[in-house]
Amino acid sequence: MNRPTATDAESGDADTPAATSTRPTTGYALAVEARADTDAFGHLVAAVSGLGADIRRTSSDGDTRQMLIACSGTDHQIAVRATLAGVDGVELISLQDATFALHESGKIRVQPTAPLDGPDDLAMAYTPGVGRVSTAIAEEPSSVWHLTGRSNAVAVLSNGTAVLGLGDIGPEAAMPVMEGKAVLFKQFADVDAYPVCVQAPTVDEMVAIGAALAPTFGGINLEDIKAPECFEIERRLQEMLDIPVFHDDQHGTAIVVLAAVMNAAKVIGRDLSELRVVVVGTGAAGVACSRLLDESGVADIIGVDSKGVLSADREGLGPTKQWFVDHGNRSGVSGGVREALAGAHVLLGLSGPGVIEPEWLGDMAENAIVFALANPVPEIMPELVPSNVAVIATGRSDYPNQINNVLAFPGVFRGLLDVRATKATDGIKVAAATALAAMVPEPTADRIIPGAFDEGVAEVVAYAVARAAEAEGLVRDPA
Amino acid sequence: MNRPTATDAESGDADTPAATSTRPTTGYALAVEARADTDAFGHLVAAVSGLGADIRRTSSDGDTRQMLIACSGTDHQIAVRATLAGVDGVELISLQDATFALHESGKIRVQPTAPLDGPDDLAMAYTPGVGRVSTAIAEEPSSVWHLTGRSNAVAVLSNGTAVLGLGDIGPEAAMPVMEGKAVLFKQFADVDAYPVCVQAPTVDEMVAIGAALAPTFGGINLEDIKAPECFEIERRLQEMLDIPVFHDDQHGTAIVVLAAVMNAAKVIGRDLSELRVVVVGTGAAGVACSRLLDESGVADIIGVDSKGVLSADREGLGPTKQWFVDHGNRSGVSGGVREALAGAHVLLGLSGPGVIEPEWLGDMAENAIVFALANPVPEIMPELVPSNVAVIATGRSDYPNQINNVLAFPGVFRGLLDVRATKATDGIKVAAATALAAMVPEPTADRIIPGAFDEGVAEVVAYAVARAAEAEGLVRDPA
Repeated sequence: MNRPTATDAESGDADTPAATSTRPTTGYALAVEARADTDAFGHLVAAVSGLGADIRRTSSDGDTRQMLIACSGTDHQIAVRATLAGVDGVELISLQDATFALHESGKIRVQPTAPLDGPDDLAMAYTPGVGRVSTAIAEEPSSVWHLTGRSNAVAVLSNGTAVLGLGDIGPEAAMPVMEGKAVLFKQFADVDAYPVCVQAPTVDEMVAIGAALAPTFGGINLEDIKAPECFEIERRLQEMLDIPVFHDDQHGTAIVVLAAVMNAAKVIGRDLSELRVVVVGTGAAGVACSRLLDESGVADIIGVDSKGVLSADREGLGPTKQWFVDHGNRSGVSGGVREALAGAHVLLGLSGPGVIEPEWLGDMAENAIVFALANPVPEIMPELVPSNVAVIATGRSDYPNQINNVLAFPGVFRGLLDVRATKATDGIKVAAATALAAMVPEPTADRIIPGAFDEGVAEVVAYAVARAAEAEGLVRDPA
Repeated sequence: MNRPTATDAESGDADTPAATSTRPTTGYALAVEARADTDAFGHLVAAVSGLGADIRRTSSDGDTRQMLIACSGTDHQIAVRATLAGVDGVELISLQDATFALHESGKIRVQPTAPLDGPDDLAMAYTPGVGRVSTAIAEEPSSVWHLTGRSNAVAVLSNGTAVLGLGDIGPEAAMPVMEGKAVLFKQFADVDAYPVCVQAPTVDEMVAIGAALAPTFGGINLEDIKAPECFEIERRLQEMLDIPVFHDDQHGTAIVVLAAVMNAAKVIGRDLSELRVVVVGTGAAGVACSRLLDESGVADIIGVDSKGVLSADREGLGPTKQWFVDHGNRSGVSGGVREALAGAHVLLGLSGPGVIEPEWLGDMAENAIVFALANPVPEIMPELVPSNVAVIATGRSDYPNQINNVLAFPGVFRGLLDVRATKATDGIKVAAATALAAMVPEPTADRIIPGAFDEGVAEVVAYAVARAAEAEGLVRDPA
């Protein structure tokens, strides 16, 4: 039987769709300002809660109250809006979609660190003084690493061909995501990340622009570029350039998944070398995760795309899918997800919402590990997994074990920049995953990975990345 | 006689070389920290002043004193350093080159405006919330102008082929200048300017990268690109794109020069239509100034390059130099700068240090206007001009009438961004110059142009630019 069982597109990335979720999230929050006395406010809270919405934050100044009300989707927002308008004694002052309000006018600014209070400052920050600094770099090129912001600057480069789970929506529509990434880079790791959304749909165009941009940056974070183009773009750029090139949709996810698999394996008392892993969804993230798991000694990896198991009987596979035939599926399984899962230890879902049936998981090994990372709606909801599943992880913040690549990319680039690394290798990625896993020294079924806001995550990852780059001799000499 | 009389390279730009100047400037300042009681500090001040250095700022905490000491060059710095070390009772704590200290680690940072204090913020700034914002832009492309930072973002794009007066020193060495420009953009006009220094030496490469980058930005400021390539790069990009493309070395200088010429003409009581202008140095700035002066009704423009006057007997001229033959030199002058200047009303020098002899100016018309804009050492020092020269301007801050393109570019882009303009036309540039000139309603020989730090310059220019863009119908509809 060979019926379609999973998607394999970019929707397989850990930071995926914006489809309607089932629980309230601030992704659909309303920012409300209202006038209400204590009684009326009590009615308001009761009405909102009765609709299943969630009041996350309130503040008040007398009877004037601000609220952030998490909803589960736009229909839910509409219902909450309607209800709020009807509560006796409540006067609505303003009501807006909190997410859109936050994104209004963008989320980042370019701020000078040099003062500019008069002609004397101008003569130092700009001409004639700046000419001396440019001359110094022309004479000693390595001084660019300390006389400019290059050593702390990363390009977040996207052509918008695979944005979250939304597909090829183009560079303009990709901007909010790249700006968001810049916010995370700064807040988690003090990296200056520059969103660069480009009209460059082909491999050659992306390679040309990445190579041209390199002198400005200490590293390039490729983002939201569709497969299979993303593989060639990254490979060619990394070969050409002497700064790290890192496609986060692939490797950020792969690092966090590897860390989580390491600790989940501890929980069930097995070694990586004993694990058979079924990867459902062989897009950018699925491919990168599989390669890093293979690199780390996982026993067997079975890839499943939308047409079924990637096995020797499949014809016309491109090189990235052929990898699964050549490097994995050692037991020679064919068929669909169900057949692949029989007896497997790990399901790694990087596909789409609800594509896994509970009874298929029942055929997995005892103490199975299930990563259902489609986001926001996983391949299977955690409530539905059968009792042989010992560990479950999702991409969501409202269940334990959130696989979120914000655990990786800020620290990875912090570490690479700290030593002015020239490449991002598999060894560096494994080191990042190992450090991340070590942050949970005694993992349990409910905690195999740190939380995104746990103290010190980026620092721990950065340190491991920097040491690994040094060990591999990929460190630029200080100027 | 046809002997070389002027250079015509990029050194003709208003913000030019970093050669040694003759007066102390903070471009060569020393930042000194020292311990000295009042007596010893008096000796220190005397010693420094005796060397012709200039103490610009001091602060103290008891006997510990900070000083900014302006010097005239590196030799002068060395002499001051040596002297400071020898003053009795002065204990040097630290002594560094203030310009290099200011540029250390770069001059700008990318700062989030969105808070990120926990998972709720993450769900709004990033996934899943951001997916809704990207979807909104995909469905209504014009919403990118308010849902991202695009409407306030400018690329400061350079390939480093003509950096200040330093020549083709490459993109890395250009970085300090572009960062400096970003500082000025922010401080003078609250524009978010992103330095983008690219490895793209050819016209085709620059056009490709400029076009690819366009979706991220509300405008492109081309910078420090050599002539004649800069002309074609700008023209082709402006034809392709629906955002303004503005080569500041050309047009920033041209706007300020036009404003200054307007007011200088008032001072000498002549109309622009009566003026014969000799432009010495026909690089990017010389060409752009000439075109804008021609556009504004100047009677006659005579271009002079390193081989002499651009006249009908010159052969093999490229199109930009041929323009001077076709549009100017109406009296059919040939020869060198001296011949061109005879009887002329205005000298516009955009060439190199000291190339003009005082007696040549004596042959100009009565009440002549001399703009000697080579920087930091002008074509002729103001002290040396003969008495028929009524108005003199330079690129320097230590003489009256500083022609500095910081008077133009921040306000120009502020105005263009405010109305989401689609092009930067000659009409818009003339409007900017007219507004700038109007800021000095009663010009005198010592004040034909506002100072860089005068209140409201960028706002006045921005307003004029925005209205001109509206009048020309080059305004994007608000989303």
